[in-house]
Amino acid sequence: MSKPATGEVKLRVRYAETDQMGVVYHSNFVIWFEVGRVELMRQLGFRYRDMEKNDKCHIPVADLHVRYKEPAYYDDEIVIRTRLTDVHRSLLRFRYQVFRAGEELLLAEAETTHLVVDDQLKRRSLPEKYVAAFKQASQE
Amino acid sequence: MSKPATGEVKLRVRYAETDQMGVVYHSNFVIWFEVGRVELMRQLGFRYRDMEKNDKCHIPVADLHVRYKEPAYYDDEIVIRTRLTDVHRSLLRFRYQVFRAGEELLLAEAETTHLVVDDQLKRRSLPEKYVAAFKQASQE
Amino acid sequence: MSKPATGEVKLRVRYAETDQMGVVYHSNFVIWFEVGRVELMRQLGFRYRDMEKNDKCHIPVADLHVRYKEPAYYDDEIVIRTRLTDVHRSLLRFRYQVFRAGEELLLAEAETTHLVVDDQLKRRSLPEKYVAAFKQASQE
Amino acid sequence: MSKPATGEVKLRVRYAETDQMGVVYHSNFVIWFEVGRVELMRQLGFRYRDMEKNDKCHIPVADLHVRYKEPAYYDDEIVIRTRLTDVHRSLLRFRYQVFRAGEELLLAEAETTHLVVDDQLKRRSLPEKYVAAFKQASQE
Repeated sequence: MSKPATGEVKLRVRYAETDQMGVVYHSNFVIWFEVGRVELMRQLGFRYRDMEKNDKCHIPVADLHVRYKEPAYYDDEIVIRTRLTDVHRSLLRFRYQVFRAGEELLLAEAETTHLVVDDQLKRRSLPEKYVAAFKQASQE
Repeated sequence: MSKPATGEVKLRVRYAETDQMGVVYHSNFVIWFEVGRVELMRQLGFRYRDMEKNDKCHIPVADLHVRYKEPAYYDDEIVIRTRLTDVHRSLLRFRYQVFRAGEELLLAEAETTHLVVDDQLKRRSLPEKYVAAFKQASQE
Repeated sequence: MSKPATGEVKLRVRYAETDQMGVVYHSNFVIWFEVGRVELMRQLGFRYRDMEKNDKCHIPVADLHVRYKEPAYYDDEIVIRTRLTDVHRSLLRFRYQVFRAGEELLLAEAETTHLVVDDQLKRRSLPEKYVAAFKQASQE
Repeated sequence: MSKPATGEVKLRVRYAETDQMGVVYHSNFVIWFEVGRVELMRQLGFRYRDMEKNDKCHIPVADLHVRYKEPAYYDDEIVIRTRLTDVHRSLLRFRYQVFRAGEELLLAEAETTHLVVDDQLKRRSLPEKYVAAFKQASQE
């Protein structure tokens, strides 16, 4: 009732994601947030793949804000926790927290704001089925 | 005297940087900002490569904030304009604007905040030569 | 006795891995092969992370040959099957097959040849513990 | 008359392209080959972007073979030399050589084989204008 529904997904850091400082290059976290978002949707009963194909709905990122706290390392098992924090007709907002599996140390946190657009990248409304489920998730 | 020194670099969008929405995937802009940063430093007379190797100074990103305004497309020639906006002993802040070459339409803008660290990722002070040049660039 | 030991790992195609043709961009398979390699090693009892850190052994790719057969799509669950096919003192060879989970259609197959090098990228011999386990895996 | 026409393009190694071994991660060369291919086409008077949009022709990679000889490093200026070696109705083959700018040391060489397909990824013939120009380039 007071805590928003949280999606959780684990992934393993790939060698390709490291840089010569010996840590995960920072833009890869942004890709991980997308993984978190898609898995949260799946846990809510939706496949983003179907939203695109069947409902002609895309949710490109309009705003991205990341705070990097601690480095992630090669072969680390990473946990992404994702919540929906705002749900409007044609705008969604997600929040992310990144951890190493089994640890409570926050590696990074972020928010993304998304516009809902159609196949021509024009603003459109999110279909009702998503609005209902997403709103509920954001208020749980 | 009132406008900060601006670095400018051009790059061509690669096929690998597009996604199935037919636009540049958003995390690639984050890589472009790094390109902009490094080229601004080069225009100020420094190679980030040497800062790392010779001076044992690294500037990992601690905070990243991007506003995506318009899509970038495959094969677009992209212009990144980069400014240093804050220069402290062990903290730097950059601002970026992304355009299509020859157009005034802003595709994205962003700020990044960087900590200065040593080879062990511990906070350290930026060597004096950089402080002087960077401060001047941020105040021009 | 006649079939080499095969490592198997699953991964989910990320949006960032697609391109504007609507399929996975081909260089991403190369990253997946690395994931397959590392998971095969893990199944043999070794972490590549430790091989690098503790044994100062790295195995950069010297030769890569990929045949792309069928496209992979966004959100597909991908299976990578990896085998060690040649094990020499300072040379390893792996073979990969890529499938969609639950399907027998081959999406891609590949071989990679690796040199064993030290921290200075100079050729060195693989430590005995790896040679023994790897040889056995390649002959099973 | 005996040497095929060669496209040449320069690019600067990005920090994101390095890995924790301190060298360019090998899959990035594959992206560079695509850059080489597109620039060779541009030098022959064609934009791959237009081939896709106007002529509904795509040339996905069917076969990729890379020999990695020497590491590339962060901030290196890289030269990609690309030649068309085979031109058939619905199959193209390219060859690549990768150097550090101003050096004769070969870092990597590769070949890629491409099928010509339409928007539905079905085999189709290359439009006549490309065949003529590409054949000439491959025989120069």
